[in-house]
Amino acid sequence: MNSQPTAQDAISTRVERLRQVMRNEGVDALFVPSADPHLSEYLPGYWQARRWLSGFHGSVGTLVLTADFAGLWADSRYWEQAERELAGSGIELVKLQPGRPGPLDWLADNAPTDGTVAVDGAVMALASARQLGDRLKTRNVRLMMHKDLLTGVWDDRPALPNNPVYEHLPPQATVSRVEKLNALRQSLAERGADWHFIATVDDIAWLFNLRGSDVSYNPVFVSFALISRDTALLFVGEGKVDAQLRKILANDGVEVRDYPAISASLAAIPAGSSLLVDPAKVTSGLLANLNESVRLVEGINPTTLAKSRKSEADLAHIRQVMEQDGAALCEFFAWFEVAQTRETVTEVTVDERLSAERARRPGFISLSFATIAAFNANGAMPHYRATEASHARIEGDGLLLIDSGGQYLGGTTDITRMVPIGTPSQAQKEDCTRVLKGMIALSRVKFPRGILSPLLDAIARAPLWAEHVDYGHGTGHGVGYFMNVHEGPQVIAYQAAAAPQTAMQSGMITSIEPGTYRPGQWGVRIENLVFNRESAKSTFGDFLEFETLTLCPIDTRCLLIERLGSEDVEWLNGYHAQVRRRLEPLLSGTALAWLQERTVSISA
Amino acid sequence: MNSQPTAQDAISTRVERLRQVMRNEGVDALFVPSADPHLSEYLPGYWQARRWLSGFHGSVGTLVLTADFAGLWADSRYWEQAERELAGSGIELVKLQPGRPGPLDWLADNAPTDGTVAVDGAVMALASARQLGDRLKTRNVRLMMHKDLLTGVWDDRPALPNNPVYEHLPPQATVSRVEKLNALRQSLAERGADWHFIATVDDIAWLFNLRGSDVSYNPVFVSFALISRDTALLFVGEGKVDAQLRKILANDGVEVRDYPAISASLAAIPAGSSLLVDPAKVTSGLLANLNESVRLVEGINPTTLAKSRKSEADLAHIRQVMEQDGAALCEFFAWFEVAQTRETVTEVTVDERLSAERARRPGFISLSFATIAAFNANGAMPHYRATEASHARIEGDGLLLIDSGGQYLGGTTDITRMVPIGTPSQAQKEDCTRVLKGMIALSRVKFPRGILSPLLDAIARAPLWAEHVDYGHGTGHGVGYFMNVHEGPQVIAYQAAAAPQTAMQSGMITSIEPGTYRPGQWGVRIENLVFNRESAKSTFGDFLEFETLTLCPIDTRCLLIERLGSEDVEWLNGYHAQVRRRLEPLLSGTALAWLQERTVSISA
Repeated sequence: MNSQPTAQDAISTRVERLRQVMRNEGVDALFVPSADPHLSEYLPGYWQARRWLSGFHGSVGTLVLTADFAGLWADSRYWEQAERELAGSGIELVKLQPGRPGPLDWLADNAPTDGTVAVDGAVMALASARQLGDRLKTRNVRLMMHKDLLTGVWDDRPALPNNPVYEHLPPQATVSRVEKLNALRQSLAERGADWHFIATVDDIAWLFNLRGSDVSYNPVFVSFALISRDTALLFVGEGKVDAQLRKILANDGVEVRDYPAISASLAAIPAGSSLLVDPAKVTSGLLANLNESVRLVEGINPTTLAKSRKSEADLAHIRQVMEQDGAALCEFFAWFEVAQTRETVTEVTVDERLSAERARRPGFISLSFATIAAFNANGAMPHYRATEASHARIEGDGLLLIDSGGQYLGGTTDITRMVPIGTPSQAQKEDCTRVLKGMIALSRVKFPRGILSPLLDAIARAPLWAEHVDYGHGTGHGVGYFMNVHEGPQVIAYQAAAAPQTAMQSGMITSIEPGTYRPGQWGVRIENLVFNRESAKSTFGDFLEFETLTLCPIDTRCLLIERLGSEDVEWLNGYHAQVRRRLEPLLSGTALAWLQERTVSISA
Repeated sequence: MNSQPTAQDAISTRVERLRQVMRNEGVDALFVPSADPHLSEYLPGYWQARRWLSGFHGSVGTLVLTADFAGLWADSRYWEQAERELAGSGIELVKLQPGRPGPLDWLADNAPTDGTVAVDGAVMALASARQLGDRLKTRNVRLMMHKDLLTGVWDDRPALPNNPVYEHLPPQATVSRVEKLNALRQSLAERGADWHFIATVDDIAWLFNLRGSDVSYNPVFVSFALISRDTALLFVGEGKVDAQLRKILANDGVEVRDYPAISASLAAIPAGSSLLVDPAKVTSGLLANLNESVRLVEGINPTTLAKSRKSEADLAHIRQVMEQDGAALCEFFAWFEVAQTRETVTEVTVDERLSAERARRPGFISLSFATIAAFNANGAMPHYRATEASHARIEGDGLLLIDSGGQYLGGTTDITRMVPIGTPSQAQKEDCTRVLKGMIALSRVKFPRGILSPLLDAIARAPLWAEHVDYGHGTGHGVGYFMNVHEGPQVIAYQAAAAPQTAMQSGMITSIEPGTYRPGQWGVRIENLVFNRESAKSTFGDFLEFETLTLCPIDTRCLLIERLGSEDVEWLNGYHAQVRRRLEPLLSGTALAWLQERTVSISA
C-alpha cells in the first residue's frame, strides 16, 4: 500500500560508507539527530542527514550508528511509519517511550569505555551536548563535536535554501520591529545581558517582522540574529534580502550580514561581555566560536514568550482568518458530501480540493503543514501523509480524519475533524464521542494564570482514561501568528516536563487535540485552536479561560449523542450556534446549506 | 481570641542578642530554616530554633535576619497565624507564593556583595546548601555553614528527646527487616553504590521495623542509618534501645551505635567508595565529614519508594484500621449531635472527645497529628489548632471543620469532615458542594501507571476553578503505614515540582483533600485517603485507579444536592452504602442510628 521512497540497498551502502569514515576517524559511535543549526522542527534538505542516512521520513527521530548496531529512536507517532520504512535496511526501530532509555541513555550505557562518540556540534543543542558529555564522561568516553562525518559521504546533499525574505506589514503586523527590539533590549537589561544570540528562525522572523519560505509550511527564512544594547545584526544568505528591504531594515537599526558571518561575529563579542542564550535553542558548535571570557546568561529567548502572547489587535485578525478558514472548510465539505456519491474520492483528492479551497481565501499564503487526510487504518498513524504513489480510496464504511491548516497574513490555522463515511461502526462512534468529551472538558476549563501548561492535560484525558484509553502525542501545542504551527513555550502534554517557561499567560494560542489510534483499524482526533483570555480576578487569584477560535462544525453523525453529558451537549450546541452565526455571511448555495445542516442543535 | 505564646519583648531581645553574635562573627545575614539534621516535618524542641527566635509557631517557615531586617517567609496556610503571632515583634511576614522570590532568592539578591551569610549546615539539606551557595557565589557572598550561631544565645534550649525504641511486630509488620535490608542492598547494587546514608527518621523506622515517640504524632525516633553491602549501622541516643532489642537487631545483622557517632562513621567510609544519598534528605553539615574521595551517587532513598508501596497484607490491616477509625468517628458524631443540644461544646471539647473515642479502639497508639476542630472563621486557617487559652464555642449557625487522624499498629488515618451547625448559609453550602465535587472527580479518575502525581491535581480543582475558587495547599500527600501522616514521594499538587520520583505506583496511599478558605468567615475541606490499585491493562497502557479507604459519612446537610452531577450522586450513594455496610457491625445504639441516618441515599 505504501511507498518505500529509498531503496534499502542504497541505505545499506550509505551506512557502510559512513562506518568506513568512522573507522578512519577512530569513532566508535555516531549520533545523528533530526536537527539543524536553528533547531527547527522542519529541516531544509541540507540538514536532513538522518533521513538521507536511514530512509525514515518522519520529521523526528535519532539515529545511532556503531560498528555493529544501527538504531533509530522514534516516538509513538512514527512507529508504524518507521517500521515500514526501515524494514530490510538493517536499521532497527527503537521505540521511544517515557521511562525507557532514549538514544542518549543508550549511548551512555553502550559506548565503549575510553572510546569516542561523534556528533556534529553544529546541529546539537548546547543543553543536549552538555547532557551527552556528562553522561559519557562517567565512562571516560570522548565526545567529538567539531566534524561533520557526512562530508564526503553525502554526494547529492541539497543546497541551502535561497528564497527571498519579505516584510510582514501592517495592518496584520501589529507591532513594529523597533518596538519589538526595544522590548527585547529591556529584557536583556533585566537579565543583565549585554548581548543576545538567537538561532531559532521563528523568533527571528517574529522579531524583525520578516517572513520567508525556506522551510516547508513555516513562513521563515534561514538566519541568525545577534542583538546588543545598540546593534541588531541579522545573518541571512547573500541576495535573500534585496537592497530596498536592506535599507528599510537599516533605518530601523538592523544591519544585514551574510549567513556564514555569524561565526566571526560570535567570535567578535568582546571579552568579558555577557550573552543571553537558551541552551536548548542554540548549538554547541556555534557557541564554540565565543571568546572564553564571554559569560553565558541562560534562559528562554525573551522573543519566545513575547511571540506566544498575541495582542488584541492580532486576535482581531486571527478571528477573521478563522472565519475564512472555516468557510473554506465548509465549501470543501459541501463538495465532498456530493462528490462521494458520484465519483471516486481518494485521500489525495481531499488534500488537493481542500488546499484549493483555502488558496482562494484572502490573505492565504500556504498550508501550515502537510494535510493529513487519512481514511480508516491510515488514520491510526497520527502523522500519516497520503501520496500519489500510495493512498487510500474513500469508500465503504468508516472514518475519515482530516487534519489541515493554513498560513494567512493574519494568522495560522490548524484543525482536525472526523468525517463519517457510509455508516461508521459503534466502536468508531464510541472513540469519537470519548475524544470529543475530552476536547470539550479542556475547552471549558478555567485555570489560574501562570499554571504550568502540562498540568492541564489530565482534564482532556480523564474521559479517555476512564475507559483505559490514551494517546501517545501531546494534547496541545502553541500556534504562531502567521508563523510556525508548532511553537512554544506552552505545551499541554503530561509527557512534557512541567518547566517554569510553560506557564500559561494571556494571549497564548494553543491546540486542543485529543485522539485515539487503533493500529490497522482507524484513528480519531478532534482539534480546535483556543486562545487564553482573562476570565476573572477573584479573592482566590487571577484566572484565565479558553476562547475557542476555530470555526467549523463537528460532525454529530460520528457521535453517540446519548453518551454526552448535559454540559457536553450545551457546549456543542453553543459552539455550533457560534460557528453558524460567524460563517453564514461568508457562504451561499450548497456550502451554506451544508453549514446549516451540520450546525443543528442536538439534545441528549 | 487567640494566644500570644511568647511575649513580643522576649522575641526582640532574642533577635538583638543574635544580631550581637552576628556582628562578632562578621555575619551579615543569618538564615534560620525550619529544619533538623533529619529534615523532618515535625521538629523536636531541640531544633525549633526558628520558632524560639521568631515566636511563630507554624510548622514551616524560614527566618532571615540581617542588621536591619527580620523577615519570616511562610506559605498561605500560615499567613493568618503568622500575622497574628508576629505582630509587634519587629519581624515582618513575607508571603511565600509561587513565582515570588523565596528566602533563598531574597538572600541572593540582598546579601551585601563580598559579605557573609551564615546558616547552620547541620540542619540544611545538601541540595539547599548547594543552591544557596551557587546563588551567593554570583555576587561573591561567602556562605558560612560550620557554626550554629544560636549556641550561647539559646539558654533554655530543650534537650534531645530520649524515648525508648520498640519493634513494629507481625502481624502488622508484614515484611521482616532482613527482607527489607536485602531489597535495599539490591537497589544499592543497581545504583552502583557501596554505601547508603539515611538521615530521614521515617525511612529508618520503616527499614528496621522499629518505632518510637521522639516526635509528636509520628511514631519515629531520632536516628541515622548507614548501610553497606555487609553492614547495617543504626545510630540512636544511648539507652533508647534496650539490651534485648539490641540483641534481636544484632541477630538480624544490625549494629546499634551511639547517635553522635554518625560523624565519625561517615568519616570512616573508605576512600574511593561510592555513597548513595538523597541531596534533599541529608544535610550538608554531616556530609562535610566524608573523605574527599568518597563519590556521591545521588537519588531518592530506595526506602522512600519502597515504604510508599503498601503490600496487600498491609492493606488488609489498613482496611481494618479504617473501620475502627470510622467507628470511632461515628461514636463521636452521635455524641456530638446530642451534646450540642444540651451543653456548651467547644473546639477543645471536640478534640478531647474525638481523641478519647479513637483511644478506645484496638491497636490505637496516638493521634497522627494535632486535631483541627475549627468553627467558622477558625476553619479559614488550614492549620488552625484550638487551645485551652484560645478557642471558639460551637454555637449559632455555620460550619465546623474537623481534620483528625490516628496512628494504629495496622495503619495511619487522616480524615476531614464538615459538620453543619444550626443552619449553614447558602454560600457555605456552595463551598462544601464545590469541594465535594472536586474530591469526587479525583476519587473517580483512572490514570496511567507512572504518571507524575502533580499532573492529576487539575482534576480535583477544575470544579472549583470553574467558579474562580482555589486553595493554597496541595490536594494530596502520601500517608504512611503506622508511620508519618505526610510522606513522599508522591504529591498531588500543581504547585509541586513534577519530578520523576513523584510517579504514581500501585500500593501508594494518598489523601484527596480539596478545600476553600474564606478568611474571617469559614473554611471548607473534605478529605479521604485513597489507595492506588490496578485498574486494567489495555492496548493503550497500564492503568491505576483509586480505592477509597476512609470510611465515614459525608454530611449531606452541608450540600446543595441539586448542584451535584449524576456521577457525583452515584459516587456518593455508592460510598455511603459501603460505609454503612462496613461500619454497621462495629456499632450499636445511637452511633448505629447516626450512621444509618447519615448514609441514606440521596437523589439529584
